[in-house]
Amino acid sequence: MKRSYSLAELAQHVEAQVIGEPQYLISALASLQNATANDLSFIANPAYKKYLATSGAGAVLIRPDMADEFPGNKLLIANPYLAYARLSELFKYTNQVVMGVHPTAVVGQDCILGENVSVGPNVVLGDGVELADGVVVGAGSYVGDHSCIGAHTRLAANVSIYHGVSIGSHCLLHSGCVIGADGFGFAPHAGQWVKIQQLGGVVIGNHVEIGAATCIDRGALGDTILNDGVIIDNLVQIAHNVVIGKNTAIAAHTAIAGSTTIGDNCTIAGAVGIAGHLNIASGVHVTAMSMVSSTIREPGSYSSGIALSPTKEWRKNAVHFRHLDTFASRLKNLEKKSTD
Amino acid sequence: MKRSYSLAELAQHVEAQVIGEPQYLISALASLQNATANDLSFIANPAYKKYLATSGAGAVLIRPDMADEFPGNKLLIANPYLAYARLSELFKYTNQVVMGVHPTAVVGQDCILGENVSVGPNVVLGDGVELADGVVVGAGSYVGDHSCIGAHTRLAANVSIYHGVSIGSHCLLHSGCVIGADGFGFAPHAGQWVKIQQLGGVVIGNHVEIGAATCIDRGALGDTILNDGVIIDNLVQIAHNVVIGKNTAIAAHTAIAGSTTIGDNCTIAGAVGIAGHLNIASGVHVTAMSMVSSTIREPGSYSSGIALSPTKEWRKNAVHFRHLDTFASRLKNLEKKSTD
Amino acid sequence: MKRSYSLAELAQHVEAQVIGEPQYLISALASLQNATANDLSFIANPAYKKYLATSGAGAVLIRPDMADEFPGNKLLIANPYLAYARLSELFKYTNQVVMGVHPTAVVGQDCILGENVSVGPNVVLGDGVELADGVVVGAGSYVGDHSCIGAHTRLAANVSIYHGVSIGSHCLLHSGCVIGADGFGFAPHAGQWVKIQQLGGVVIGNHVEIGAATCIDRGALGDTILNDGVIIDNLVQIAHNVVIGKNTAIAAHTAIAGSTTIGDNCTIAGAVGIAGHLNIASGVHVTAMSMVSSTIREPGSYSSGIALSPTKEWRKNAVHFRHLDTFASRLKNLEKKSTD
Repeated sequence: MKRSYSLAELAQHVEAQVIGEPQYLISALASLQNATANDLSFIANPAYKKYLATSGAGAVLIRPDMADEFPGNKLLIANPYLAYARLSELFKYTNQVVMGVHPTAVVGQDCILGENVSVGPNVVLGDGVELADGVVVGAGSYVGDHSCIGAHTRLAANVSIYHGVSIGSHCLLHSGCVIGADGFGFAPHAGQWVKIQQLGGVVIGNHVEIGAATCIDRGALGDTILNDGVIIDNLVQIAHNVVIGKNTAIAAHTAIAGSTTIGDNCTIAGAVGIAGHLNIASGVHVTAMSMVSSTIREPGSYSSGIALSPTKEWRKNAVHFRHLDTFASRLKNLEKKSTD
Repeated sequence: MKRSYSLAELAQHVEAQVIGEPQYLISALASLQNATANDLSFIANPAYKKYLATSGAGAVLIRPDMADEFPGNKLLIANPYLAYARLSELFKYTNQVVMGVHPTAVVGQDCILGENVSVGPNVVLGDGVELADGVVVGAGSYVGDHSCIGAHTRLAANVSIYHGVSIGSHCLLHSGCVIGADGFGFAPHAGQWVKIQQLGGVVIGNHVEIGAATCIDRGALGDTILNDGVIIDNLVQIAHNVVIGKNTAIAAHTAIAGSTTIGDNCTIAGAVGIAGHLNIASGVHVTAMSMVSSTIREPGSYSSGIALSPTKEWRKNAVHFRHLDTFASRLKNLEKKSTD
Repeated sequence: MKRSYSLAELAQHVEAQVIGEPQYLISALASLQNATANDLSFIANPAYKKYLATSGAGAVLIRPDMADEFPGNKLLIANPYLAYARLSELFKYTNQVVMGVHPTAVVGQDCILGENVSVGPNVVLGDGVELADGVVVGAGSYVGDHSCIGAHTRLAANVSIYHGVSIGSHCLLHSGCVIGADGFGFAPHAGQWVKIQQLGGVVIGNHVEIGAATCIDRGALGDTILNDGVIIDNLVQIAHNVVIGKNTAIAAHTAIAGSTTIGDNCTIAGAVGIAGHLNIASGVHVTAMSMVSSTIREPGSYSSGIALSPTKEWRKNAVHFRHLDTFASRLKNLEKKSTD
């Protein structure tokens, strides 16, 4: 059921200026390297300029100052990457969502379902669940008692949401994510662990995206909170009582320990570890695989870790990490001697 | 269906001493900062003393020696954190578990179901599955052929248990966890991989908790074993033939490679990596994001990794990691010269 | 339904030579340490030689040059580990797969199902799904619209496959894995994120194994590609538009960022992080927990990271990581002085 769009239509959608044939038809988006005659491509990163001359694209989204580099049809626009993002919406796959509750779904007591809700096959809703207008719950997903899902939020297949979770509108939750499982709270006693029941919930704002197999634990007391516009990649761990500020992005495999607060508009790269009970200021960027073990008060970019070497060389150098303290004293000694 | 408890009732539950009004009613637990008049709070960490004076809590669990710091109702007890853990049990959400097998569940041949078992909607049990008394299997979970689950163990929604897995009593398994998938075993042959069928099982003791999306592989030959009282957080990888000692705690995103044995009462922090075929002594603590690549024979705390810096500074320093071996020789040279 | 095999039968299966009683019956495989009279064991690693003398194994797979070290029945073979892998196939658990579509499964419109297909309980297939001959889809799994699964590929329980995914023949996908979720693509705009619809798919070759809770995202434009013979462990993240070469093995908890290409026959150990837009040559080995942030052009072994120390010692040394740049200047100064 894919349709094509004229360059004029696409230009209007993103307020671009057509250079070339306004009636030229585009049926897909593609990268400069792979595009063919019915594809629209884009150039965002100047490093890709080299592909412009030879690209088979039917048209290109391009900045006015670079327009001369592509001979064919083009859509002039200040931010081609943003325009590409907006146009991607037109070309996405949209399956035929069947409205209503699938006969194989199991709906608990006292649920409130809005207009145009789609509850897929084998979905299970607990008691008192609220689904606002236009919510889509994918096949095999579970929503626990008294959880609320805001308008037009979509759950992919096999999502698990525990009881007492609140999710805003226009969110997207991917398969395998788990929202509201117990935080990891135990009191040590006589060599054993006494479970601390996790009595809080999870509150997720609007326009939040949560990746596949990502886990967001419920609060111990009080809630775990993701504010509006947060985007989270796959396999991320968000522990109990974490608070994540607006529009913060967190890449795959990152883990955030309990009760840490992260500010607005942070970008946390992949496989980062953030200890518990910290405060991360707004506007912080943390590079991949970094270990964050203290509070960060100033915006800016932070890093830790060691770059890769051939294993043989790495071994020779790594062994001296254990000598750094003695290196320091030996240096001091030498300096003392040399000034004597 | 929440109820309230008098301070006298709560005190009796944990053997505390009431100072104030024994009939005062408590309806929830809360942190000192957020507590209001019907909440019970607690002070475990002296760092939170500052919140005592201004807390709105109706009552506080507190050590006798700190009792003077809070003017209102209090429950005197030697270990307020443990008392809080125990009282949390009273206030937890308990959904109406429907006993019996839900009509949408699919039960294989020759299954043995105990008293008061709850098999939720869309659950699938293989052949020869045994569920002891009081077992709860959450919606959409799968239990493979001939797996056994001990009394009062609860599986949340969408748990996957393969065949031939044995789980003890009073365990809790969270959504998305996978128990008994194949270990990662392959023999290299002519540039390809020949699969080694994983013929062992998984044996899990009593009072074990397993977090969301955590994976515990079955043994290659012989079993992967988690002893009684082990607690495991989310997104943890336990490879084939790992053995984990009693009451060991493992935080989120940790990965343990095949055939490693971990002792009793260890605490492994988050995002730690432990290589295969190692022995970790009882009583070992490993700090977050550490890399464990050799056997640890003595109890104690172990660490590796690099602390965070602003990226600019980090770059300047990190580049010299590759020079550590030459630093060592240069130091030696200088020392030799200075003593000549 | 387990059966036994004579040593003669087993020898024939792997082209080994029987030393001892050809009619001796073997009912299971076991390690040297745990084997009893009806078990066949193997010695692959010379470090295990010490267990040969005392092993209770009924027979042992052994290299001709080591044959004298075991007194009992043996199967002589050049590569005992490979022979063990091949024989493991004979002893694996095979559940009674019921052919056909289980009455609780939901099958979309225009699906094409081959011969001897098994669609388990509570499975959901979207529209236009193609399952080739002998495909097994485990309980509770989901396959999205227009996805194709090749002959004899097996999906364990609770697997999630999005729309437009192509999987080859003879693959094995473990529980909780998610194939084809959206890549993490967003364009920043005015402090917010504009979603980039992920328009590509995932293409997986033949003989690929994918571990539990592993996530393989669909491409942004064009596909994410896993070539034939790739083996991937649990909880691995493969981002959009990654390409993985033939027979490459990736251990648990590794994360590979977007658009990176990995060559053939690489072995990536556990918890490795690989940045985006890199090229990793064929034949590269990366040791556990390494951080790969640049392209690797030569085959060989690569590493990063810091070895474990007792926390006290680690602290004393780690603090000097921040001084490495000043160490370098101080060394230079001293050297200059000493040659003055």
